[in-house]
Amino acid sequence: MASSKLCASRTELKVLGPRPATLTGRAVRSSRVQIIRRRSSTVLCSVAPNQVESPAAQTFVADVPKKTECFGVFCTTYDLKAEEETKSWKSLINISVSGAAGMISNHLLFKLASGEVFGLDQPIALKLLGSERSIQALEGVAMELEDSLYPLLREVSIGIDPYEVFQDAEWALLIGAKPRGPGMERAGLLDINGQIFAEQGKALNAVASRNVKVIVVGNPCNTNALICLKNAPNIPPKNFHALTRLDENRAKCQLALKAGVFYDKVSNMTIWGNHSTTQVPDFLNARIDGRPVKEVITDSKWLEEEFTERVQKRGGVLIQKWGRSSAASTAVSIVDAMRSLVTPTPEGDWFSSGVYTNGNPYGIAEDIVFSMPCRSRGDGDYELAKDVLIDDFLRARLKKTEAELLAEKRCVAHLTGEGNAFCDLPEDTMLPGEQ
Amino acid sequence: MASSKLCASRTELKVLGPRPATLTGRAVRSSRVQIIRRRSSTVLCSVAPNQVESPAAQTFVADVPKKTECFGVFCTTYDLKAEEETKSWKSLINISVSGAAGMISNHLLFKLASGEVFGLDQPIALKLLGSERSIQALEGVAMELEDSLYPLLREVSIGIDPYEVFQDAEWALLIGAKPRGPGMERAGLLDINGQIFAEQGKALNAVASRNVKVIVVGNPCNTNALICLKNAPNIPPKNFHALTRLDENRAKCQLALKAGVFYDKVSNMTIWGNHSTTQVPDFLNARIDGRPVKEVITDSKWLEEEFTERVQKRGGVLIQKWGRSSAASTAVSIVDAMRSLVTPTPEGDWFSSGVYTNGNPYGIAEDIVFSMPCRSRGDGDYELAKDVLIDDFLRARLKKTEAELLAEKRCVAHLTGEGNAFCDLPEDTMLPGEQ
Repeated sequence: MASSKLCASRTELKVLGPRPATLTGRAVRSSRVQIIRRRSSTVLCSVAPNQVESPAAQTFVADVPKKTECFGVFCTTYDLKAEEETKSWKSLINISVSGAAGMISNHLLFKLASGEVFGLDQPIALKLLGSERSIQALEGVAMELEDSLYPLLREVSIGIDPYEVFQDAEWALLIGAKPRGPGMERAGLLDINGQIFAEQGKALNAVASRNVKVIVVGNPCNTNALICLKNAPNIPPKNFHALTRLDENRAKCQLALKAGVFYDKVSNMTIWGNHSTTQVPDFLNARIDGRPVKEVITDSKWLEEEFTERVQKRGGVLIQKWGRSSAASTAVSIVDAMRSLVTPTPEGDWFSSGVYTNGNPYGIAEDIVFSMPCRSRGDGDYELAKDVLIDDFLRARLKKTEAELLAEKRCVAHLTGEGNAFCDLPEDTMLPGEQ
Repeated sequence: MASSKLCASRTELKVLGPRPATLTGRAVRSSRVQIIRRRSSTVLCSVAPNQVESPAAQTFVADVPKKTECFGVFCTTYDLKAEEETKSWKSLINISVSGAAGMISNHLLFKLASGEVFGLDQPIALKLLGSERSIQALEGVAMELEDSLYPLLREVSIGIDPYEVFQDAEWALLIGAKPRGPGMERAGLLDINGQIFAEQGKALNAVASRNVKVIVVGNPCNTNALICLKNAPNIPPKNFHALTRLDENRAKCQLALKAGVFYDKVSNMTIWGNHSTTQVPDFLNARIDGRPVKEVITDSKWLEEEFTERVQKRGGVLIQKWGRSSAASTAVSIVDAMRSLVTPTPEGDWFSSGVYTNGNPYGIAEDIVFSMPCRSRGDGDYELAKDVLIDDFLRARLKKTEAELLAEKRCVAHLTGEGNAFCDLPEDTMLPGEQ
């Protein structure tokens, strides 16, 4: 399996050997010049070694790895000492992204590099996972990141082996998944993608940061997240999320439209359950301008019958209009989901995320990944929201989406180490406009 | 010609009539609820009028236009009085974007909405220009903007008539242009696109802010910008820019790669002249870590022969790798170009922009649009950089790109009001990977 630091042209070089023992900490940021340890890897490079001039700055330590080991503008050694004197950079955050050559990533990576999630004083490293089919496109993405000159983007590496790309990842954004082929049932999709997420879970377990935060976007994302966490026993299950933030955002927008208010007035919007048509956008607990939605929107028929459908149809309408699925707004929702974990949740509000159900206070079955209302202190962790109302109407809907997730779990028992799979999913509950 | 405020579903309504005389200023931000004055327009709406509940907040003035006049979440009236008490919003900036359904815009619009250019306390309105062919896709873009819940994005409107979409524009980002058809020469492209930019210049002249800043991206961008400014005699010619910032960014990256330094060390990078293969990336004045490039990169053969080619080939390599042209990094460079005009240029540095040559100190022919080094105090305006060296090698190259721009100008004399066109462009100087 090949992996390469970001580079641009065709010079190919073997990278062998461990990190030089003489390399010391302070003057050179170790994570930048670290040589990826692997038996045999290909590095594709922008310039051949004999084309590289000596560095301009004279403060570099003498014993950094030779330029033959790493190329591309993100492999250049920067002058850390000067930086330390003038700015107080935080230490680099490693972010791994799968499906990195796809359209969602094409929006997301530039948002991450611009500082939208972690702020303007937080340098980042992007570690991009593609496939053999997409590796050329991924080089193109990396070239565009080079040409964007983002000061916060200090490293870009690309590869097709999750055991290399997830190395030391503090965030893993798992976007890549196989799209559903013609005639494929949800069960088939669960199996195919489940295998990918089982492998990626194992890889995270082996090489990622012990406190890596994982956001699963590839569908069926709840059960993929469950498979992933089951295959990563050394990472807290609490750290795995299935993305339901786009559903939350769409639900807020539809309530704002119906109430005739700007969307910033809508709060406490929960998406409960599965990222599928059984999901439950919760109008019982949501608020508009601080007031319960039902006080503001008195058309209960609309709330009970139309609202959910409007949220769910959004993706399908978008495909009709725009000719492709919602890459930009999905990327925005991933940024929102990450930011919700690294900034304190406003007093009284919450956000939705598909998280592990063990210990939940809502009476939802344990040991599945279910979207629920969360709050964070901004430390990357979260707790489940208190003061949540559940009436009979909501309870019945929660039961339905819970039943679906339990059925999906039985479909993938062979991938979670729980015996033989038994798959009985009567309905196709894929959301319109998703693959 | 149809134009519509952003909306999502299929209810169609006529919007007739002027703005109500009873509408007063303070409590309702007038630009939000303004009815676009036109004889006959179509508004496509997310919800039918009878589906809209009363607003939740009770502070709205009673006589705002009825909800039948405007729909979509960006048409909701927000509670300005409450906002004034709690936050100090700046007044709305109107940004018009042509080619708004295309891939460059698909990246750019979300960057603008996120506050990347104007900051996190600056609300914006996006006025999106599409074509009859792209208007459905443009609705899709607007829906994704709705679903992104950007707090700074207060208005989105879409249309196909520049006289409507450019109304009160303070920024006009002219991205849309016809791609070159099979066998079409640069002269043919100049004529076809020149007509578009002549019309858009007239529209800007008629309806935009008197101090609108115009950035032309559609190719051939220098001459398109010239045509545009000639057709807008009431707007200062100084306000028109042709985008050469992607070339500048790529040039910085290539110098950084060659010198083995991080790209933030490269400054004073000028792209001179035309956005074509005659452009001149200037290694005489550029600096690496404050030192002249030629002191750091002593391989003068590389500088004189390879550097420019590397910058120019970048777009072509990207198409090979990625299968499409550079939308994301182009959008980044547009953000950079705008930000360079609204933030003070760092002491001693400058940025490149294709601007009107009258009064330039470099001996470049007057009355063309030529990329030159600029500095800004951050007020939207700029001055040309002083202390720029020009040696014989650079002078000869400036002459060549100047000659090309003068020839292009003769090709479009019929569009600039300067008599009959005479077109004699021997070479195809389109940059690789551009259309």
